[in-house]
Order: sequence, then C-alpha cells, then structure tokens
Amino acid sequence: MKISILTLFPDMFTGVFQQSILNSAQQKGIVEYDVINFREFSKDKHSKVDDYPYGGGGGMVLTPQPIFDAVEATRKRMDSQKPSRVILLCPQGERYNQKKAEELAQEDHLVLICGHYEGYDERIREYLVTDEVSIGDYVLTGGEIGAMVIADSVTRLLPGTLGNETSAVTDSYSTGLLEYPHYTRPAKFKDFEVPEILLSGHHANIEEWRRQQALKRTVERRPDLLDMIDLTKEDEKYLQQLRELRNKG
Amino acid sequence: MKISILTLFPDMFTGVFQQSILNSAQQKGIVEYDVINFREFSKDKHSKVDDYPYGGGGGMVLTPQPIFDAVEATRKRMDSQKPSRVILLCPQGERYNQKKAEELAQEDHLVLICGHYEGYDERIREYLVTDEVSIGDYVLTGGEIGAMVIADSVTRLLPGTLGNETSAVTDSYSTGLLEYPHYTRPAKFKDFEVPEILLSGHHANIEEWRRQQALKRTVERRPDLLDMIDLTKEDEKYLQQLRELRNKG
Repeated sequence: MKISILTLFPDMFTGVFQQSILNSAQQKGIVEYDVINFREFSKDKHSKVDDYPYGGGGGMVLTPQPIFDAVEATRKRMDSQKPSRVILLCPQGERYNQKKAEELAQEDHLVLICGHYEGYDERIREYLVTDEVSIGDYVLTGGEIGAMVIADSVTRLLPGTLGNETSAVTDSYSTGLLEYPHYTRPAKFKDFEVPEILLSGHHANIEEWRRQQALKRTVERRPDLLDMIDLTKEDEKYLQQLRELRNKG
Repeated sequence: MKISILTLFPDMFTGVFQQSILNSAQQKGIVEYDVINFREFSKDKHSKVDDYPYGGGGGMVLTPQPIFDAVEATRKRMDSQKPSRVILLCPQGERYNQKKAEELAQEDHLVLICGHYEGYDERIREYLVTDEVSIGDYVLTGGEIGAMVIADSVTRLLPGTLGNETSAVTDSYSTGLLEYPHYTRPAKFKDFEVPEILLSGHHANIEEWRRQQALKRTVERRPDLLDMIDLTKEDEKYLQQLRELRNKG
C-alpha cells in the first residue's frame, strides 16, 4: 500500500514515520509513505496556494490548482489496479472509526489532504475528494495530526505489520469489551498491591476474574458496547449481581 | 502553561512541535513542551520499563516505577499553584472533545502519558492518573498521536496563540453549524465554476446564501448539532423548504 500525504508542513511527519511500528512497516516494504508539499505544485509565481474568499469574509481559502495537480502527479506514480481514495481531513467529515480504518486498509493507494488554518475551495471537495473524514469533535490547527491517525490506524491493520509480541494486549475492541486491568511486578509498589488472585496461579479463577473486570469496566464506562456482543450465561449472571450491588447503594 | 509528555518515542514529537502554530506558541513563551523518555527513570539495570503480566497471558505491561518517578520529577520542576493534571491516553478513556480541550486549557501543567503496544499496570491508573482520555473509536499503535491531539487542541485555545489572520475561518463549531462552502480564484477552474451569487457583490444575499448552505450541510451531515443552537425564524423557514424538497424526492 502507498499512503500519499499532501501538506504545507511536510516536516511534521518525519518524527512519526521514522519511529516504531510505522518505520518498521516501511522497512519491511508493507507500506510506503509519500509526504508531498503541495506548494511545489503551485503555478503562481510566488508559489501561493491560497487566496481571498469570493464573497468576502475573513480567512484565506486553499485554491484548487496545486491540490488537483499534486493528486494527479501522485496517482501517475502509482500503477494501482484500483482508483486512489482521496481523503480530506476536515471537521465536517464523517467520524473516523475502526470500521473505516478496516475499509481503507483494503485500498492500494490513499491520498490524504491536510489543510491548515485556511478553508478549502469547495471544488476540491466536490470534484476531487472521495471521502471527508474527521477524527473527532475537537478543533485542531490543521489536518496533519488527523492524517497521522489514519496512516497509523490503517498501517497496523496491514498483514505483517504487527509481530506476535505486539498484537496481543493491544486491542480493546477484540473481545468487544474494554480491557481487564493489567498488573506486573513488583507485587507491592509503594503501598499499592496487586490483587491476590493474580498471584494464586489458579488459571480458571484468573480467567473468570479478568472477564468480570472487563465486564465491570465496560458497564461503567461504555455500556453501549454491551449491546454489540454475545454475552454468556455467566456474563449475564455477573452483570445481574453488579446491578443488585448498585441498587443496594 | 507547560505540557509534559511521557513517552518511549520522544523523537515522534520533534516534527510536530517545531512547525507552524505550535512552534510559534513556544517561541512566544505561551506554552512549553517537555518531552520525556520515561525509560531514563527506570531503576532496572537494563533500563526495562515493562514486564510480564501477573496471572499470565500475552503482551507486556508497563511497570509503575519509571512512570511514577518521571511524573514526580516533572512536577518538581514546575512551581505551579495548581496540582498537575495527569492524563493517560488509552482506548478505555473518556472521549476527548472540544469541551475537554477548553477545560484543560485552564490548567498550568498537563502531564500526558503515552503507552505503546504494552498495557499499563493498573496502579498507574488508580493512584497517579487524574484523567483517562481516548481521542476516538479507533486503535492506534500508541498514545503519542493522541498526545499530539491534546497538545495541539489545547495550545490553540491559549490566549495569544492564534493571530487574527488565522482565527477567522478555523472554527466549525463557532456558529454551532458546519461551515458554509468557500470559494476562491479562479472563478472557473477546469469546467468547475464558482456560484454566481458570490461574484454578485450583493452582501446581504451572500450572507443569506452562506447561512443556508451551512444549514443545509449541517442537516445532511450532523443533524444532531441543530438541537444545540438557537435558530432564527429565517433558518426555520429555510429548513422547512429543505424538508419539503426532500419529501418530493
């Protein structure tokens, strides 16, 4: 897979792509990141990429030409069977989630467009972009961190990226429940002790405790997740006990 | 304000903090970013920061000592009136949003803890952390990009960070509606033209068109936002027209 990123701040990405799992995925040839400064595609003699908005008002608007040309150039360098997905990071976009990450992980070529404090000329949205995505209900100074979210979440889904040593603990979503609490040495740190059951060596009891802790945390923090999974009879029984405890105050 | 970030991958942050608005906020002395490799606080002779989980199972778990000591050290370097907020980036956390960003922007010192593929020893959560935060319903390889989201969204709210030239277009949330479409030169790009009304010079009509476009986009993409704002009579009338159009197919 190739992930092309169009930005006015290409240096923002060097740290992220040269570290950790994203770097090793690149080294293994699983993914290629291509960070492009779309200012280089501007045909304006001063390399301008924005201009005043038609109709007046504050702020600047990214002009269509450099972005259209940069997308075309990166598409030409791909010999993909599928057309590229062109994704605009913006607050009005659909909310990004794990399902979308899985969908994008099937593609050959993603183009991520990051605006900064400017707006986008609407023709970019209308005639070039295939997906508009927002990573959450908060305002950022630009689309770059959102592009990192997409690059990271998609890359870790590509076959071969995660080794065995890293894949196990990661996924809060794999059982559909939130994770149970983890503990490691020392058994006593300051005055804080590890629950005795984890030191007992009794594996069946430990499994039961972990399942119950995961259920408890999910009920407390994300009860909506419970509707989406198949609960066992033991789960239902434990949840009933929790409810009774709570009703007693 | 000081934002301390505890991570095993400090180099991931160099690009982000040396660019654009975050860099200029630092230069102006509005904010100080302090990226700390908590491995340096490990008392283990091999500088280990994780260990096997009690009770068995895959994956490694971050051990409490280096993180407790790193937080204590960064607190000591602050002479803040308020106690530090210690924020853990994790999928089980409360969903981060603009309201939370505004709340955090009131603090003197934020400590952001980024795990990577390991789990956290529960005692870190229970006895050190004041907030657990998730930036969205997707799985990332680590907490670093989440820490960037918090650093960016909080910094831009600090007085003096955004100049006049940048503050205007940014905020999708400022009217409570999604943004209206922006257009800039050229009036015709390829075959795609700017809506005539924006070239008319008739400001009242332009304002009305923009308000209606913002309403239309909000109805289509985020109807939930409409419940949270005060609509004018003209807004209601336009929305009624939209509904009638839609009912006619």
